[in-house]
Amino acid sequence: MSLSSESLLSRPSKPLLIVLSGPSGAGKDAVLSRMRETGLSLKYVTTMTTRHRRASERDGIDYRFVATERFQELIKDNELLEFANVYGNWYGVPRKVVREALEEGWDTIVKVDIQGAAAIKKLIPEAVFIFLTPPTIEELKERLHQRKTESAADRAIRSKIAEEEIKQLALFDYIVFNRQGELDIAVEEIEAIIVAEKCRVKPREINL
Amino acid sequence: MSLSSESLLSRPSKPLLIVLSGPSGAGKDAVLSRMRETGLSLKYVTTMTTRHRRASERDGIDYRFVATERFQELIKDNELLEFANVYGNWYGVPRKVVREALEEGWDTIVKVDIQGAAAIKKLIPEAVFIFLTPPTIEELKERLHQRKTESAADRAIRSKIAEEEIKQLALFDYIVFNRQGELDIAVEEIEAIIVAEKCRVKPREINL
Repeated sequence: MSLSSESLLSRPSKPLLIVLSGPSGAGKDAVLSRMRETGLSLKYVTTMTTRHRRASERDGIDYRFVATERFQELIKDNELLEFANVYGNWYGVPRKVVREALEEGWDTIVKVDIQGAAAIKKLIPEAVFIFLTPPTIEELKERLHQRKTESAADRAIRSKIAEEEIKQLALFDYIVFNRQGELDIAVEEIEAIIVAEKCRVKPREINL
Repeated sequence: MSLSSESLLSRPSKPLLIVLSGPSGAGKDAVLSRMRETGLSLKYVTTMTTRHRRASERDGIDYRFVATERFQELIKDNELLEFANVYGNWYGVPRKVVREALEEGWDTIVKVDIQGAAAIKKLIPEAVFIFLTPPTIEELKERLHQRKTESAADRAIRSKIAEEEIKQLALFDYIVFNRQGELDIAVEEIEAIIVAEKCRVKPREINL
């Protein structure tokens, strides 16, 4: 296929949909928080959840905390891009927020668990799928055990599920390691991925 | 396909072969020079040529300048990864240097014209192909006319060929604009592409 010189000389600037995922405890929230402080110009889409807010979390930034009734209305109205019940709580990505951000030309990033990434992959295969993970299973387990806000039973379930989740890597485009004490390297790699994706000759076509 | 947890947890660190190309006057040499000063850890493979050295050029860095007889020996011995006669001069990439760098685990970068990139694409489709270009044909023509070391006839030929070359974009993975006064942005984008490529879940398999 030969492209016309026009399509070369204005690099196709279609907005990207970036899906940041990975096992619980990988540090997705810490990465996004650092990116918001200093990073690229992006639209961050906040995941909705029915679970209880942890003390460190801010409504509308870390999650949008909603009542179960409201969440079930959104499911019924097909207003969630993906949703899942994980460990007894609902999580979902508001479809309208993502669609509007892309229509406005924003590169848009959503944070989802691996089930959520798999659901979005089916719906929007041309999104950019990034898998964030600690470098070893041992380090992941260690982090989960340090999370004091969860019960031992929760931790055991999460730890088992994390090993399964790691097997889902094949649906992702990129893997980024979040090593202890090296958050900035993970952030730089994710930003490099976004810059590189914007340099692609063949743009990804998002249909939402 | 599901990957084993081992293949996740040690990110496949195969060395990349990066092919930097683009029309004459795009600024490939300036970009490489800046990258050598401050950039990523890479092996830079110097193109061999039989053309005369310009005053600003350093043998072994900008080009490896060789006699025509020596160049023809290398062709005969199949020791050039690609070679072409452009505007009456020979240019070629020494195969052995590239192979040894990759075997030693270096991410390796070669600079070639667009004919050279097309030749390498056939031989090594899994290399990373980057097209460097000024943002408009007009700016490209402007730069070619500023190159005082060439004759008017040379410039006219190059300018015509440059328009043809731009049509070859489809064989490239990435396009990077080198805007007047913004060399650092082009360098940052190329480095981002290299970082991102090293984060790919499915590594590129180079067979050389």
